[in-house]
Amino acid sequence: MKKLKYLVLTGVIISALASAVAQQTVRQKPLIIAEQGSFLVGGAKTTQPGSFVLTDALKPAGQTFHADHAYAFYQIPVKARKYPLVFLHGAGQSKKTWETTPDGREGFQNIFLRRGYSVYLLDQPRRGEAGKSAVPATITPTADEQFWFTQFRIGNYPEYFEGVQFPKDSASLEQFYRQMTPNTGSFDGNVIADAVSDLFDKIGGGILVTHSQGGGPGWTTAIKNDKVKAIVAYEPYSGFVFPKGELPEPIASAGLFGELKGVEIPLADFNRLAKVPIVVYYGDNIAKEPTKVWNKDHWRSGLEMARIWAATINKHGGDATVVHLPEIGIKGNTHFPFSDLNNMEIANLLSKWLKEKGLDK
Amino acid sequence: MKKLKYLVLTGVIISALASAVAQQTVRQKPLIIAEQGSFLVGGAKTTQPGSFVLTDALKPAGQTFHADHAYAFYQIPVKARKYPLVFLHGAGQSKKTWETTPDGREGFQNIFLRRGYSVYLLDQPRRGEAGKSAVPATITPTADEQFWFTQFRIGNYPEYFEGVQFPKDSASLEQFYRQMTPNTGSFDGNVIADAVSDLFDKIGGGILVTHSQGGGPGWTTAIKNDKVKAIVAYEPYSGFVFPKGELPEPIASAGLFGELKGVEIPLADFNRLAKVPIVVYYGDNIAKEPTKVWNKDHWRSGLEMARIWAATINKHGGDATVVHLPEIGIKGNTHFPFSDLNNMEIANLLSKWLKEKGLDK
Repeated sequence: MKKLKYLVLTGVIISALASAVAQQTVRQKPLIIAEQGSFLVGGAKTTQPGSFVLTDALKPAGQTFHADHAYAFYQIPVKARKYPLVFLHGAGQSKKTWETTPDGREGFQNIFLRRGYSVYLLDQPRRGEAGKSAVPATITPTADEQFWFTQFRIGNYPEYFEGVQFPKDSASLEQFYRQMTPNTGSFDGNVIADAVSDLFDKIGGGILVTHSQGGGPGWTTAIKNDKVKAIVAYEPYSGFVFPKGELPEPIASAGLFGELKGVEIPLADFNRLAKVPIVVYYGDNIAKEPTKVWNKDHWRSGLEMARIWAATINKHGGDATVVHLPEIGIKGNTHFPFSDLNNMEIANLLSKWLKEKGLDK
Repeated sequence: MKKLKYLVLTGVIISALASAVAQQTVRQKPLIIAEQGSFLVGGAKTTQPGSFVLTDALKPAGQTFHADHAYAFYQIPVKARKYPLVFLHGAGQSKKTWETTPDGREGFQNIFLRRGYSVYLLDQPRRGEAGKSAVPATITPTADEQFWFTQFRIGNYPEYFEGVQFPKDSASLEQFYRQMTPNTGSFDGNVIADAVSDLFDKIGGGILVTHSQGGGPGWTTAIKNDKVKAIVAYEPYSGFVFPKGELPEPIASAGLFGELKGVEIPLADFNRLAKVPIVVYYGDNIAKEPTKVWNKDHWRSGLEMARIWAATINKHGGDATVVHLPEIGIKGNTHFPFSDLNNMEIANLLSKWLKEKGLDK
């Protein structure tokens, strides 16, 4: 009983501290925004055969449908640095990923605005406010949140990992579950890369920051468009590309998506990835050796593939780095390092890398 | 041929002027934002029977699903006025409605931030970044954009209305078409009102600004929650509520959705609408008398119903005003006055009303 009381009291104190931290965030200096706005970019257009008849306007004849664009919300601070950061979310997420964290602290949107970077936050084609899809979709409410809790390495549900950088109050977890949002058309990495490439054509040179499933379309965008000046990828898993003849063996895994394969592409395309600095970050609680613990093993296969991939890029003259955060002493990160409790430390790491690569001018 | 050349040249000049206007917007004074962020609010949660089994994590047993929340992005300027503006979009739209206009000028988000109002931009439940829906949905690509061009009174496609306050370049029209985004679950006014009411509980008193289909959930929110201190509705069409026994006759219309009916509610609920100032705005090219021109007649029925509705509120001691913009000399507005070419004039009108009602402190 005494122990329970102690635990409850600790909970109250932690909540109060978390609240104080949130309050402190609020009292930061104002953001000075030179310009902000939004637009749709890229995408396809189809026109139905026939002619539009005004008196029969619910018939498709002659009517158009625009789809498969991305949505971008941007903010440009005063005295902005040269290269903006372009943020592409992961599976089941929207640009919300980069905004306020589940426990109400500032995300990378505000953190990097304060550091003088322009930010472009994307909803990829067929997601969020870019919902018009060229292909149909069926959306089914699916009870799967305890799976995601585990897959995203907050813990092995209902247990939190010891020292995990995720807040343990129920309100934060609720925000985290609610920030997921479904596909309004099937995931298509090329459709996404096309739209993101169109964005770079519109805005000029910039740094592409991806999360998870956004990783693959990120590489494809950089291959398509030399206005991508650098790539920062948080926990990519799929879509690792290799030159013809250099595809590694699939990596077996106890993860629920099974073995992990690379994707073969022409050498000329692959070589473009050797032209830009690339950094890839992975968090904690990823197995070092194969294990039956499926979430830890899923990400083990991702991390192993990332290392082979980076080595292949570097063999071709590139500059790719894989950072496994616990190996440099940063512990407890989930699949979302940029919104974890230590996201300021994660941001500092990125700032340091951008400076080292001369991308912070 | 000469005439064609002239037209082309005029087009070029208009484009150049439009571009100059956009550029001018860019060179406005910076926005000074004390705080900005986003969150999910309201919604439901279901839990599947059984217990979650870690080793069988793709089975729904014991898993939860959070849905039917709204998404809110907010910005609070320094020295903010007391009451924020809470913006709720219309059918097929998202919060994008209130952001940059199709031709790249500032929308109500920026305009009212510059005037010292805090702004909350919502994606309603089952739309945009609030996509998790408690009910399933099928999304089908539907060629219907020439219908919407006409329904939203840009013109009778392919003709633009004479003097219409919508830009005539193709890039603007493309942005306009792409900013639509589908439902990820069926439209449910009560689900929306529940989430918006939860937002007001979280943020305290504020002014609710709705567009089109958002009108009905707007009245319901104000009935639920006395933290709604005023309602501003742009072109509401459906969901007009009347006290038991005072329901008007349906209004026949050549509009493609047929006759327009009011909705009966208890008098005690209705009377809450008599407690807050309400203003309703309609644009141009709405018929004065019944006509076979379906778009003009659709909105004629909406405007007529709005007038009966406002008179009923005022009869019960309320303060509701319907402004038909052409009657006060403001011509050419579409269904989207707040993003039309003259949206600064439309904003000025709203500022004046807020001041008159003492809502600008």
